[in-house]
Amino acid sequence: MTNTTDKGRALSETLNPGMEAALEARYGHLVPGMAEGIVDFAYGRQYAREGLPLRDRYLGTIAALTALGGQTKPQLKVNIAGGRKAGLTQQEIAEMIWQMALYGGFPAAINGLNAALEVFEEETE
Amino acid sequence: MTNTTDKGRALSETLNPGMEAALEARYGHLVPGMAEGIVDFAYGRQYAREGLPLRDRYLGTIAALTALGGQTKPQLKVNIAGGRKAGLTQQEIAEMIWQMALYGGFPAAINGLNAALEVFEEETE
Amino acid sequence: MTNTTDKGRALSETLNPGMEAALEARYGHLVPGMAEGIVDFAYGRQYAREGLPLRDRYLGTIAALTALGGQTKPQLKVNIAGGRKAGLTQQEIAEMIWQMALYGGFPAAINGLNAALEVFEEETE
Amino acid sequence: MTNTTDKGRALSETLNPGMEAALEARYGHLVPGMAEGIVDFAYGRQYAREGLPLRDRYLGTIAALTALGGQTKPQLKVNIAGGRKAGLTQQEIAEMIWQMALYGGFPAAINGLNAALEVFEEETE
Amino acid sequence: MTNTTDKGRALSETLNPGMEAALEARYGHLVPGMAEGIVDFAYGRQYAREGLPLRDRYLGTIAALTALGGQTKPQLKVNIAGGRKAGLTQQEIAEMIWQMALYGGFPAAINGLNAALEVFEEETE
Amino acid sequence: MTNTTDKGRALSETLNPGMEAALEARYGHLVPGMAEGIVDFAYGRQYAREGLPLRDRYLGTIAALTALGGQTKPQLKVNIAGGRKAGLTQQEIAEMIWQMALYGGFPAAINGLNAALEVFEEETE
Repeated sequence: MTNTTDKGRALSETLNPGMEAALEARYGHLVPGMAEGIVDFAYGRQYAREGLPLRDRYLGTIAALTALGGQTKPQLKVNIAGGRKAGLTQQEIAEMIWQMALYGGFPAAINGLNAALEVFEEETE
Repeated sequence: MTNTTDKGRALSETLNPGMEAALEARYGHLVPGMAEGIVDFAYGRQYAREGLPLRDRYLGTIAALTALGGQTKPQLKVNIAGGRKAGLTQQEIAEMIWQMALYGGFPAAINGLNAALEVFEEETE
Repeated sequence: MTNTTDKGRALSETLNPGMEAALEARYGHLVPGMAEGIVDFAYGRQYAREGLPLRDRYLGTIAALTALGGQTKPQLKVNIAGGRKAGLTQQEIAEMIWQMALYGGFPAAINGLNAALEVFEEETE
Repeated sequence: MTNTTDKGRALSETLNPGMEAALEARYGHLVPGMAEGIVDFAYGRQYAREGLPLRDRYLGTIAALTALGGQTKPQLKVNIAGGRKAGLTQQEIAEMIWQMALYGGFPAAINGLNAALEVFEEETE
Repeated sequence: MTNTTDKGRALSETLNPGMEAALEARYGHLVPGMAEGIVDFAYGRQYAREGLPLRDRYLGTIAALTALGGQTKPQLKVNIAGGRKAGLTQQEIAEMIWQMALYGGFPAAINGLNAALEVFEEETE
Repeated sequence: MTNTTDKGRALSETLNPGMEAALEARYGHLVPGMAEGIVDFAYGRQYAREGLPLRDRYLGTIAALTALGGQTKPQLKVNIAGGRKAGLTQQEIAEMIWQMALYGGFPAAINGLNAALEVFEEETE
């Protein structure tokens, strides 16, 4: 039986190749093992779980990060890009973000749309 | 062509029968027209929109309200119940909420699961 | 020249009679001097300041606490009551709160209106 | 009788000329009708409402966006500029922002003052 | 070599005996494995780590939960109680909470002190 | 007996030489006395207090500002630098920040680590 660290590593290398190594290189001297913790918990014990498809997981994360506001813009962009790879259309992503005007306020939603525009622009380059 | 207020009213009466009248009765003396504004914007110009199915809209709202924290617990419960009617399983809802441990923190996710448990319990009554 | 502690004490005794003594009685054994700190900074160095009338100060606080969400509900109610004494009408307060749907989201604004209703109800008792 | 979309359009063209067209041009291909939704709800059903003057509305928004923190800095600046046109003095705006040290914390208030300084500087150019 | 799940289980059984079983009983039917995930990540990969003593970890969590606001009050109380067992004095906890007036605002700090008072009261029972 | 303004001034000149004068120069024309208010409340009535050592105060602030999210990045950096001078090791700071993944979410913790890396880099220059 594959444990959560192995499952997580398999998924993170598919979704974000090289991420674990990059995290370890950047933070490992300060917080040893942090990269493996992300791979195990965020991927193995969350994104790789049964019960909710990857596409839905990205949709919810995009909604939450939009509502939480622009300080997580880098992570929002990563999740928008990931959501696109998981099958979300640009329209679905934009609709989800704009809906967050109801819960995070209009500025948060507009700032989220701006993040999406940046990601979508990189798709055409 | 149906305008957004009509579209919104039709949807809100399906999802939350009597909501507009209840809002008007409760707040209308202080904020005239607020009920219609909710029906038009939140329903007509958001939840009734094409481009993202209702089931997905509820999933994103459940994620966002969980991550934002427990002060919106009443509204989170309403959206969990709405999500159930729109076709989300209890497992899908719980998975989405637990995933928010990554973005709103572990307490927010656990408090969200507690809200879900309350809604699911009412289903069996 | 009256210093900020004296100015603050004069204002707090007018707005919230007995508050400093109550704070000192409740928290003083744990956090000595905290009550005087509130009187000096929050009242003497904020609410008693020239440059913005008390009525406007309450309006802004009501807006901010609404947008921040329901975890500060007790303090929101205190400021709504204070705003009423400073000359704000019920309608002005409700309009300000509802406007926060744009910045703190619809649930935060509705929860704020519920806090206002509780305060206004106590006015008639 | 003018409906809220017309009222909102009239006000937004006065306060932010060309805003609706700019929003439509930027986001309309992703979120059709979003620009009109902002004009109707944010302007027609909020800022154009009776019951609270425009000057007070800006004051509350400035307070709320300051307390919510710097991720809405672009929108805070727009509202500071709008508040100036609606009759708020620089001092009133600064006092309101500094008061938010009590509710959003000292960093949020200082970051808000920095946004105000940027707006005021543009006034002299 | 003890893995993080074992380390985490050992620590959580010391700090919060029976917690994993209670979590599994309460949520396991909805989110299988969630309890083990908390034990592994929150305890094994955070609280059990070298580099920062347990007493300091509780101090930081108490500060953060206070600043984040009252929606995490249950968890704040658990961490205050945990901090007391880890060696923090009531005064140190209260001072840390009151300092959060600077970052989460005065209402958040006062609500945090109220949570502390509840915990300290239970100590004398 | 030294009052809180004198105590605060002594401490702030030690921790952040010239800060009061810089604040007064930058904001004093808009918000007269604000600089002294910071010196009195934030330093004299918080950081200079007995009951919790300076090193612990910085640890809690670093935790809180991380959990609150990246909009207070400038202030987080100042407090990380201050914490280093007060005796915190780079490892202790990084561990505290990473622990906030549990309360402010993973993006907030990673963004906090990035702020720490910037401060630590300046140490070697």
